[in-house]
Amino acid sequence: MKPMGTIPAEFSHAPLRIAGESAEHWARVAGDTPLFVYDFGVVAARVARFRAAMSLRVKLHYAIKANPFAPLLDAIAPLVDGLDVASGGELAIALQRKSGGAISFAGPGKRDDELTAAIIAQATINLESEGEWNRTLALSDRLGLRPRVAVRVNPDFELRGSGMRMGGRATPFGVDADRAGALIARIRASDADWHGLHIFAGSQSLDTAALIEALTGALALAERLADQAGLSPPLVNLGGGFGIPYFPGDLPIDVMAIGQALGAAIEQSPLAGAGCSFATELGRWLVGECGVYLTRIVDRKQSRGETFLVTDGGMNHQLAASGNLGTVVKRNYPVAVASAESDAPTETVSVVGPLCTPLDRLADRVTLPVAHVGDLVAVFMAGAYGVSASPTAFLGHPAPRELLVGIAGG
Amino acid sequence: MKPMGTIPAEFSHAPLRIAGESAEHWARVAGDTPLFVYDFGVVAARVARFRAAMSLRVKLHYAIKANPFAPLLDAIAPLVDGLDVASGGELAIALQRKSGGAISFAGPGKRDDELTAAIIAQATINLESEGEWNRTLALSDRLGLRPRVAVRVNPDFELRGSGMRMGGRATPFGVDADRAGALIARIRASDADWHGLHIFAGSQSLDTAALIEALTGALALAERLADQAGLSPPLVNLGGGFGIPYFPGDLPIDVMAIGQALGAAIEQSPLAGAGCSFATELGRWLVGECGVYLTRIVDRKQSRGETFLVTDGGMNHQLAASGNLGTVVKRNYPVAVASAESDAPTETVSVVGPLCTPLDRLADRVTLPVAHVGDLVAVFMAGAYGVSASPTAFLGHPAPRELLVGIAGG
Repeated sequence: MKPMGTIPAEFSHAPLRIAGESAEHWARVAGDTPLFVYDFGVVAARVARFRAAMSLRVKLHYAIKANPFAPLLDAIAPLVDGLDVASGGELAIALQRKSGGAISFAGPGKRDDELTAAIIAQATINLESEGEWNRTLALSDRLGLRPRVAVRVNPDFELRGSGMRMGGRATPFGVDADRAGALIARIRASDADWHGLHIFAGSQSLDTAALIEALTGALALAERLADQAGLSPPLVNLGGGFGIPYFPGDLPIDVMAIGQALGAAIEQSPLAGAGCSFATELGRWLVGECGVYLTRIVDRKQSRGETFLVTDGGMNHQLAASGNLGTVVKRNYPVAVASAESDAPTETVSVVGPLCTPLDRLADRVTLPVAHVGDLVAVFMAGAYGVSASPTAFLGHPAPRELLVGIAGG
Repeated sequence: MKPMGTIPAEFSHAPLRIAGESAEHWARVAGDTPLFVYDFGVVAARVARFRAAMSLRVKLHYAIKANPFAPLLDAIAPLVDGLDVASGGELAIALQRKSGGAISFAGPGKRDDELTAAIIAQATINLESEGEWNRTLALSDRLGLRPRVAVRVNPDFELRGSGMRMGGRATPFGVDADRAGALIARIRASDADWHGLHIFAGSQSLDTAALIEALTGALALAERLADQAGLSPPLVNLGGGFGIPYFPGDLPIDVMAIGQALGAAIEQSPLAGAGCSFATELGRWLVGECGVYLTRIVDRKQSRGETFLVTDGGMNHQLAASGNLGTVVKRNYPVAVASAESDAPTETVSVVGPLCTPLDRLADRVTLPVAHVGDLVAVFMAGAYGVSASPTAFLGHPAPRELLVGIAGG
């Protein structure tokens, strides 16, 4: 038997209720399984937690890449101060919800057509290199438009305890800190609108102290660069990296402590007095826990003494939960049998998807209430990097349904 | 500097030619980058190699999951004896190219609607469990049709040296060998058409001796089960698992040796005298080496002394090449700068895609001819489990183009 992660407190289970209704209810609403159900109440609670913890000076940006489902974007856009996009495709859907001034575009491989779209929309282009600046300038000249640009800095530190380290080393992201000053000077010597700095040290960290260190380290780096430039940046995007507890033993971060420490650092910062704004960009932390993936048991079988529940969806929709997206060791996301009562007898089973590959395993030897063909299995923590980060065409199965629920009045 | 795999001999390079044309030619034909170019000449050569090596008694099935691109299916279907499918979606596209009698459907999570489609099409259902047999029987009764079924057996041995082991252990695939006899008896006691056995021990093995052992082991297992049943199976699908050399140090398998050993074992088998047919199902080995992924360099940048070529496609189209599909350690697929001449000066670079994640790396610190923004990078071994096994919606980038080239007269 292997342990699994903890089911988010927002979901009452045994039996599972999502926004007050059963899993079967949502499967009927969607028309078929598998499906993702996103409870917007959880997202709104995360936004409220952020606002309660953070200084009013710290703006909240949503990183669309975590979950670009259109109804979710419609609902979250009014609650956040900006949208961060990572491609021309994401820019297009962001512009349907926010003006260009509230959108920033980061990403190491921006094509000319993507830069052109951002220049026209007056979105902030987070420049990843000197070469990207040269292309932006040339395209802006051709368009006769003034680009709005920020400099993405590859910080000289990393986010400790991070699932994805992006600073403190050679990376394709941003301009090394020791070259950022020269690029800022070149931008200021042009007629471009220099919008500030973007400093991102890593993602999915559950270490509160490390997050405080990274955010205050980004602030200190911004102060040094402002000193060099002799000018305060209009906006400093301090990054994000707030993790969520997927796995056994994981504990949530202390956002209140982060807010207090960052607020105190900002109070003392010369940038605060100079009228600089600050932002953090969050994706996973805002939406990851709102999602439940529901998949129906198609077969229940024994092999060499082990029991397998075979479901109608798997790694084709939930690549990360199957342990195939940037993880070395397969650990179990929290899962549940949706209809099971709390006193149901339990057994040890593996939950596997329908694909003809041993990689397609949603839960490895977990203890669950006894389940049968036709029952729904719920995989939690499915709100971020789920369907959009999965190979949905793999083996020719249908795409999953998606539902946004729990909207006040909706 | 890290090594990379060997470029398949069919592609002359420095500069690269695919089916006699340059990479830029194919990018123009496709209309944009990134794109997959599949050279059908390579596929036809693999089919010919198989036919030259194998006994005429061994049929060749193509496993669609390796590459379901419609023009490729159109071209390969006439060259193979059967198509193996893994979902209702794949069944539908297979039926456009072969009759149901030449199609077999394996997969541990077949839904009732998929079983129904297979029963109506008279495709062979490779039963994965006793429960699936019960559902097949009930659905057939309701339809008033006679189902054609084979029993997928979880063999009591594994394919050594296999990237994906599927036998010799508890798995969701097939019925354990010691229970297969009882299931065959139940099928024969019904009025279903028992079509034989499906025995699949693993995939992507480069160990010729292990492949011979697995194929002859499957034959021996089929003999034991035929003995128990007192009846020779009409068809024994012996599996496949033929690997291709992706990585440094990998060597191709010796198909001639496999054909000789398997042929000799079949000659001596009582099943051969009893009129049994045999098949192997191959996907990756037939099409994996035919594909070249072409992606354009959008940026060239330095970070802390390392050089990065940032391309317009990456793990969103080539998840396996980025090391994020079932591999623990990132090793380099063969890559090339498409336009480079043989005597070009070289340098050590990493090739990274456009996604905002450090996972998006197509080649890690390889030595390549010096390349510039606008040049095309070729990633070889891209014909199998490429676009269909990748998260194409990730971060909102466009889907890649696909081209089938090198068709005689086409």
